[in-house]
Amino acid sequence: MDTQPQPPARYDDLNALFINCTLSPSPKFSHTGLLMEQARTLMTNQNVEVDTVRLVDHQVAPGLKPDMTEDGTFERDDWPALFEKVRRCDILIIASPVWLGERSSVCSRLMERLNAHSSQTNDKGQQIYYGRVAGSLVTGNEDGAKTVARSVLYGLQHIGFTVPPQADAYWVGEAGPGPSYGDETDLGITGVDHLFTQQNTTFMCWNLLHMARLLKDSGGIPAHGNQPEMWKKGHRFGHPQ
Amino acid sequence: MDTQPQPPARYDDLNALFINCTLSPSPKFSHTGLLMEQARTLMTNQNVEVDTVRLVDHQVAPGLKPDMTEDGTFERDDWPALFEKVRRCDILIIASPVWLGERSSVCSRLMERLNAHSSQTNDKGQQIYYGRVAGSLVTGNEDGAKTVARSVLYGLQHIGFTVPPQADAYWVGEAGPGPSYGDETDLGITGVDHLFTQQNTTFMCWNLLHMARLLKDSGGIPAHGNQPEMWKKGHRFGHPQ
Amino acid sequence: MDTQPQPPARYDDLNALFINCTLSPSPKFSHTGLLMEQARTLMTNQNVEVDTVRLVDHQVAPGLKPDMTEDGTFERDDWPALFEKVRRCDILIIASPVWLGERSSVCSRLMERLNAHSSQTNDKGQQIYYGRVAGSLVTGNEDGAKTVARSVLYGLQHIGFTVPPQADAYWVGEAGPGPSYGDETDLGITGVDHLFTQQNTTFMCWNLLHMARLLKDSGGIPAHGNQPEMWKKGHRFGHPQ
Amino acid sequence: MDTQPQPPARYDDLNALFINCTLSPSPKFSHTGLLMEQARTLMTNQNVEVDTVRLVDHQVAPGLKPDMTEDGTFERDDWPALFEKVRRCDILIIASPVWLGERSSVCSRLMERLNAHSSQTNDKGQQIYYGRVAGSLVTGNEDGAKTVARSVLYGLQHIGFTVPPQADAYWVGEAGPGPSYGDETDLGITGVDHLFTQQNTTFMCWNLLHMARLLKDSGGIPAHGNQPEMWKKGHRFGHPQ
Repeated sequence: MDTQPQPPARYDDLNALFINCTLSPSPKFSHTGLLMEQARTLMTNQNVEVDTVRLVDHQVAPGLKPDMTEDGTFERDDWPALFEKVRRCDILIIASPVWLGERSSVCSRLMERLNAHSSQTNDKGQQIYYGRVAGSLVTGNEDGAKTVARSVLYGLQHIGFTVPPQADAYWVGEAGPGPSYGDETDLGITGVDHLFTQQNTTFMCWNLLHMARLLKDSGGIPAHGNQPEMWKKGHRFGHPQ
Repeated sequence: MDTQPQPPARYDDLNALFINCTLSPSPKFSHTGLLMEQARTLMTNQNVEVDTVRLVDHQVAPGLKPDMTEDGTFERDDWPALFEKVRRCDILIIASPVWLGERSSVCSRLMERLNAHSSQTNDKGQQIYYGRVAGSLVTGNEDGAKTVARSVLYGLQHIGFTVPPQADAYWVGEAGPGPSYGDETDLGITGVDHLFTQQNTTFMCWNLLHMARLLKDSGGIPAHGNQPEMWKKGHRFGHPQ
Repeated sequence: MDTQPQPPARYDDLNALFINCTLSPSPKFSHTGLLMEQARTLMTNQNVEVDTVRLVDHQVAPGLKPDMTEDGTFERDDWPALFEKVRRCDILIIASPVWLGERSSVCSRLMERLNAHSSQTNDKGQQIYYGRVAGSLVTGNEDGAKTVARSVLYGLQHIGFTVPPQADAYWVGEAGPGPSYGDETDLGITGVDHLFTQQNTTFMCWNLLHMARLLKDSGGIPAHGNQPEMWKKGHRFGHPQ
Repeated sequence: MDTQPQPPARYDDLNALFINCTLSPSPKFSHTGLLMEQARTLMTNQNVEVDTVRLVDHQVAPGLKPDMTEDGTFERDDWPALFEKVRRCDILIIASPVWLGERSSVCSRLMERLNAHSSQTNDKGQQIYYGRVAGSLVTGNEDGAKTVARSVLYGLQHIGFTVPPQADAYWVGEAGPGPSYGDETDLGITGVDHLFTQQNTTFMCWNLLHMARLLKDSGGIPAHGNQPEMWKKGHRFGHPQ
């Protein structure tokens, strides 16, 4: 092997938030959490500040408002505190298991609550998530990973995140029931040695780092033609109609 | 209204390729093509070099190879010539109608043929589409636009494109049969005055321009942790396993 | 108009369960609930025994077991009582709003908990849901209804429900923000007069009734080639391998 | 093993149409075609009349009309002849490979052309496909089978087919590139011995047979509340509005 290539930049001023959307509360083992650990470690080794949330451990109310206790709909809502972590991050990675071929209900809840802030803006007047990058991690014992990633990444770009190339990584087994990622079998620990998943996880992490670096260094997405308030005021930025 | 804001950069060195996946061959009217025209004009006004393809006018063979005539599977394949346009572009916008709630078969064909090049690499050793940005335009007479955009944008990021924030714009009418984008009715020309679609088209265009500018100026996505050949040689770029 | 056509059978021995997956707890107004009311009334008028659940009013634990309190994962789980209603029904209609183009997190939760019973069998040895029929109702202020119905109906047939023709009905408005089903505007009450939605709701209801009648009268799906236990014992029912 | 269970009925008056949506024209090997063969043989052994189409061998024009040559849009269109086979069938099984996590473009083309007949009616005045049942077969070297089945089955029920329980079967391998169904490796012929796929294929076939039997014996879906012409005339079949 050649000399180990060196990273083209430093990343120690970046913050990455990993949200695990497993259905299993702590301290249960989370297969999805184990895959997340791989990505987390890679980023930590680059001195990225990393934060992790297992969403099911928190009481996140259903609904479409930033804080569901405000109008008394629910008595408790842990989301506002969690959202502060999202505000702080440069990189958001959402990890979800696959159930019946789709993302978990915990992941759906997360997407709904993220969406609830889409009318908020940053200091440039762009949607609040502009300047942040997003990735998707998925595990399942079989088919469905691309459905989950498709859904998560589409939703996130739709509300303002940037999706760099190959921003999804996953492990699923052959069609039908079988061991999950991290399960011990006679053949070893399922999935963790799977080169395809390792490669995709690595590429995802680096593309998130590169893009976050690029956006941070250039001051985010330029503010022109993408500010809701300016549009409302009548600016059309060259739209022909 | 305030003074017209000025773009933060020049874009006259950028190339944008619009591919219209309508089912209707020329010279028929394409509703999807009309929406595409809005985006095309905005970019042309910024002196972007713009190219347009109506895919159904070409004979694109089904299959998973860059050129389906090579092994004699098909006698004719217009794809290789079209792919040269993709290679040249900095920005790719795929426009598709909605049928039965999904992207057109012409759009599916396009995604397959784009995917057929995913083992090719650029001069940095990254997948061939790295450094390019992608957007999605959709029209239908009713429901299904997000499904189409989800599918197109996911596929494109998966093979190496970057997806900037809010890179999709669409028009669909109310549930059920009705006029399509550009159809004349007693109420005027359907869809073209729809502010939501205009805004999303504008935001999409500008975010594509901003991100293409950013990537071109910085020499594309940095080459570290995302080159298939390096991975095959055994480099792991900090993956913990 | 001709004489009112008469139903070809009686349906007063049938039980229909409507589950509303709105994010809004009672007593808030549910747009989705209003569409559900249309279908519910049609069935009630045929003397079908109808039961309704607003799922968000119940504390349904996340997870993949029939009762999530059993192993102490959660202290409370309202699902087992709700599942008794599912067992009793001949017809299940799942109603969901659209958020970010997809079904609600409450709907995802429901699908997960229904799926958790898929290893249970009926008295013929078929999966527990065999002999039941399923339909999907969706409302949203814009695009996404087909995605929701596709997801709900696929999941239900996959675990044993029968899906009759045109078993989905929905209302969504034009692309972009706008009034929801049942909202009052200057133009009246949104959606309720929409003939397309009325027709689809009617067709869905009748096809559910017809198919439920057919299955009840014929004793359900015949037990041959579809019993997991028989398969495990080695019966292959003519599979060539 | 117990005595071989006997089928509860005869099926020799039924017609099943298998449409293979592989991208590879004859005489190339089709992995998807091999899985289709399993189902085909099971049905043939029950004396079902079986017909098979490999769609890519035919020149099926893009478009939304029953015959795309009629208005001169295309010079050739093989679809009208193929549609006669659909009209004749009681059971339609659509088999598709997975590409980039979705159905093939050939499969999308098929769905569009089937949809083009949705305004035609049977002799009861119901949509033309009423009384027919549908199933989905999928192969891929990895993830995406449920996405394909979801899309195919939803589309078919939406235009009038009945979907019996567990009407989908598939084989896909572990995450990432790998052998396809039927490929020979050191471990044998990939997929064909996979019990999960065999079971699902068997269950699908039998549920299609049972439901087709049921519908044929009862004269199809009863004609009440599901005839477009009656609705247009003003009949509302108990819809409350």
